[in-house]
Amino acid sequence: MIRLHIALELAYDIGEHGGDFVFNIHAAHTQRQRVVREALSLSQALPSVVQTDPATGNRYLRLQALPGPLTVRYDATIDLDHHVAEPGWIAEVPVARLPLSVLSYIYPSRYCPSDRLHRFAMREFGRLPQGYARVQTIRDWVLSRTTFTSNSSTSDTSAIDTLLGTVGVCRDFAHLMIALCRAINIPARFATGIDYGADPALGPTDFHAYVEVWLGERWYLFDPSGTAIPMGFVRLGTGRDAADVSFATIFGSVTSAAPRIAIEAIADGNGRLVVPHHSAQALSTDG
Amino acid sequence: MIRLHIALELAYDIGEHGGDFVFNIHAAHTQRQRVVREALSLSQALPSVVQTDPATGNRYLRLQALPGPLTVRYDATIDLDHHVAEPGWIAEVPVARLPLSVLSYIYPSRYCPSDRLHRFAMREFGRLPQGYARVQTIRDWVLSRTTFTSNSSTSDTSAIDTLLGTVGVCRDFAHLMIALCRAINIPARFATGIDYGADPALGPTDFHAYVEVWLGERWYLFDPSGTAIPMGFVRLGTGRDAADVSFATIFGSVTSAAPRIAIEAIADGNGRLVVPHHSAQALSTDG
Amino acid sequence: MIRLHIALELAYDIGEHGGDFVFNIHAAHTQRQRVVREALSLSQALPSVVQTDPATGNRYLRLQALPGPLTVRYDATIDLDHHVAEPGWIAEVPVARLPLSVLSYIYPSRYCPSDRLHRFAMREFGRLPQGYARVQTIRDWVLSRTTFTSNSSTSDTSAIDTLLGTVGVCRDFAHLMIALCRAINIPARFATGIDYGADPALGPTDFHAYVEVWLGERWYLFDPSGTAIPMGFVRLGTGRDAADVSFATIFGSVTSAAPRIAIEAIADGNGRLVVPHHSAQALSTDG
Amino acid sequence: MIRLHIALELAYDIGEHGGDFVFNIHAAHTQRQRVVREALSLSQALPSVVQTDPATGNRYLRLQALPGPLTVRYDATIDLDHHVAEPGWIAEVPVARLPLSVLSYIYPSRYCPSDRLHRFAMREFGRLPQGYARVQTIRDWVLSRTTFTSNSSTSDTSAIDTLLGTVGVCRDFAHLMIALCRAINIPARFATGIDYGADPALGPTDFHAYVEVWLGERWYLFDPSGTAIPMGFVRLGTGRDAADVSFATIFGSVTSAAPRIAIEAIADGNGRLVVPHHSAQALSTDG
Repeated sequence: MIRLHIALELAYDIGEHGGDFVFNIHAAHTQRQRVVREALSLSQALPSVVQTDPATGNRYLRLQALPGPLTVRYDATIDLDHHVAEPGWIAEVPVARLPLSVLSYIYPSRYCPSDRLHRFAMREFGRLPQGYARVQTIRDWVLSRTTFTSNSSTSDTSAIDTLLGTVGVCRDFAHLMIALCRAINIPARFATGIDYGADPALGPTDFHAYVEVWLGERWYLFDPSGTAIPMGFVRLGTGRDAADVSFATIFGSVTSAAPRIAIEAIADGNGRLVVPHHSAQALSTDG
Repeated sequence: MIRLHIALELAYDIGEHGGDFVFNIHAAHTQRQRVVREALSLSQALPSVVQTDPATGNRYLRLQALPGPLTVRYDATIDLDHHVAEPGWIAEVPVARLPLSVLSYIYPSRYCPSDRLHRFAMREFGRLPQGYARVQTIRDWVLSRTTFTSNSSTSDTSAIDTLLGTVGVCRDFAHLMIALCRAINIPARFATGIDYGADPALGPTDFHAYVEVWLGERWYLFDPSGTAIPMGFVRLGTGRDAADVSFATIFGSVTSAAPRIAIEAIADGNGRLVVPHHSAQALSTDG
Repeated sequence: MIRLHIALELAYDIGEHGGDFVFNIHAAHTQRQRVVREALSLSQALPSVVQTDPATGNRYLRLQALPGPLTVRYDATIDLDHHVAEPGWIAEVPVARLPLSVLSYIYPSRYCPSDRLHRFAMREFGRLPQGYARVQTIRDWVLSRTTFTSNSSTSDTSAIDTLLGTVGVCRDFAHLMIALCRAINIPARFATGIDYGADPALGPTDFHAYVEVWLGERWYLFDPSGTAIPMGFVRLGTGRDAADVSFATIFGSVTSAAPRIAIEAIADGNGRLVVPHHSAQALSTDG
Repeated sequence: MIRLHIALELAYDIGEHGGDFVFNIHAAHTQRQRVVREALSLSQALPSVVQTDPATGNRYLRLQALPGPLTVRYDATIDLDHHVAEPGWIAEVPVARLPLSVLSYIYPSRYCPSDRLHRFAMREFGRLPQGYARVQTIRDWVLSRTTFTSNSSTSDTSAIDTLLGTVGVCRDFAHLMIALCRAINIPARFATGIDYGADPALGPTDFHAYVEVWLGERWYLFDPSGTAIPMGFVRLGTGRDAADVSFATIFGSVTSAAPRIAIEAIADGNGRLVVPHHSAQALSTDG
């Protein structure tokens, strides 16, 4: 078990007509990600509500802010008790046996037009032996053909743009891997979180986007951007793609500052400290 | 109340490796669409399961077919007890007050890239008075600028293609209307069904696609293609767009014949017969 | 007749392997744009050649630069003796009577996919009376629906993106107007130049892009961006769209500074000074 | 030298307002493709004019047809005296030394958006040794990854669609090869012609599209579709892509039948018969 402490601070300046916010900054409730303690503070005295989507466990903070500055602080202590499995034992699931709740993750979405990539993906990956290793091959393929480049994409950039452009940020790596998986009928979804990075002294400078793929009987974690440590992901939200999962959806005239984010591994109740590290095993925080 | 009887027959020829099917041909269970009686018959002796999506009420028939011919017959008697409202009294819902379950229907999807249409739609519809009438204006705009043309679109055709190309089939009209609604933050979703058409002697020759828009506190029916009578829609499925809702999703080497579909209005238990007709009132089969 | 003096300064830093340049910064030679005097100076001692495209009159400076800084200065005195005509007398030309050299300007190009806009444009402009006024209507339509916004487009932005996005810079306004003209079979081409602006005290800060449309028997000037004075355009190049006409096409690892550009109206040999001004008459610098 | 005889018959039915045609069915005049004899016949008594584009040698037949049926017959005897070269000796040309008339063929066009493929192509082909062999590798890559499939593309299909969709007809193979060449700064253009096929008993059933690439100091022939024999191409037209080169561009309400095309190798004036055959040597009909 890993215990992590995260802290976020988001700062906005809201225009004269106020602004509506839907935040997805609360740690998700999953079977293997437990929120031990959490606190939210707002610089404006506002009613707010946190709603949980029963299908995904995503938690949404909704509020209507007044004109002027708004600061949102959230911090939480999270226990991760990963499901850990041997990759060689994890099989793909035939479409006929996919749970209904998983089925929609093989369909194309705004940023992952997997239908247009079907033949391309079949040619590249269609004849590989099925299983976790095939998905790992897709992840490695995306990583090896894409160069992480800040500001190289926009809110319009799709998996096809990334395939052709060969550059992107974590969100783009995730979209491309998801589209390729779906193109060969493997369910894949987009996840956002806070990542415990390679250099904890620096800490994350932004939210992270990664991929969950349905294999065996659960969603396994993959990081196609190669920049993070999957064992150290605190999951905030999952969805079809980035259209569904934004840490802040804002309606109104609002300017924002860069988020401030901190994460650290801390000792659990028994005084044990486990630091996230790269692992060859398959990990899931789900079921 | 309207009582309708529908009958479907789907015929396939399945290749040597068999085929997996996910059908969405059962009438949805909604608060105001009640299945009085239904029967399914398969020409192959197969185990099959019908699963219901709790979020939408969509019902999915799943089966694994053997090589050779397969015929699927479904017939059902459905009672529609529409929620009927005066359009002038129906308001749009500010984003801040949208239910969580509705929120995802303002996000872009595969065939409805509403983000790309935001400014275009704001220019056309942004200053109109809000409410049911604005949505009706969008529906009329789509209908007046698009010409129904068989075989004018493919599985790749998006709302933008339809906007520029000005031709389409019912699915394309629906995608364009949905994209324009979402572009100005009005939740809209794609629905498929059997429609009781203008000339019941002919009957429908295909499944119909239409639109549901969240206004007031429910999903109201719109038919941007102008070819059908909303009061006579038997809802099969709803979703983000056509990527989510197909009457048959097929995996494997399968050839199919055109579906055969019949619908008729019949007398209810009290011997009363109500025939669907065009109405100036707002209709919902939901909640 | 108008006499203008232009001066350009372009500054580059060239990487260790050198860089190849194709400049299109020399004033074009046309029947009604005469270069009275011009001078080119390079900060590196390089052989350079200026080639003229016989079809367009575009003049290309080609050189291979050495590693290190490179400054290119060009200044010229240009006499413009516009063909001036009354808009009401200028007709569109039936396709059958278009000169062969003009025909390719009704075909789609990289940034002006007019084929995709055919039906949209027919609906908007197809029934208007033909002639200069129809083209002016298209120009006004583009201007009224598009907002000039710096940095709102990229090298990937097409006329369709601009139509939907409703923002752009001069290049985008030009692409959209061109695409709409071609969509209804009116030949239109992309032009770049230096514009004598509304406030000559400020001077241009960048190259300008505008449109030439074939009407009657020549190419007439249009400025869909509404930011400049057509009478004050010094033409550098024309082509299908921006893919063909760049003031500098660079091969190699090169960084560049913003161009420095100056333009002023000066007295001609007879001491007469004519300052460019907005005019309701149709203007051409061609034939 | 090869002597070929071609015969075309095109049949149309023209609507009540007549129709304007631009045909490109005359064999091009090039330095190494000589028209020995040709004849044109029209079923309507019409004035017609044949114009030659000085830049490409394309010849355009223009006419205005009357309502009713129109048949156009063209037949010609053509001598091909190919420039033949050893592939190993043919070099790519640095951008700095490309002739001005060739330069535009490295820019993106409607169906060959090479700018979007730059990084993809650099990754696949950027490090290969330069020369004819690299272009041959691109040609083989396109052929091996694309499956010839009738009716698999539309007039909207671009090189990117073909890359992802992995299917196409000869036009699509050509667009993809052209886009990949331009993406790494190798000039490439689209060519149409009549091909002396593998089975001359059957004859061609349609016009053929292929590719010319500028290497050394001329345009060399490539057939990425793998369906034809380059030595047996009679060139009709060349251009940026299919937007520029259509055997018939039609304005008006016109219906058309499938073209009828025949080609045969015949003996030259000295009684020698050379039959086109596959060759490992590089061929050009230009300069």
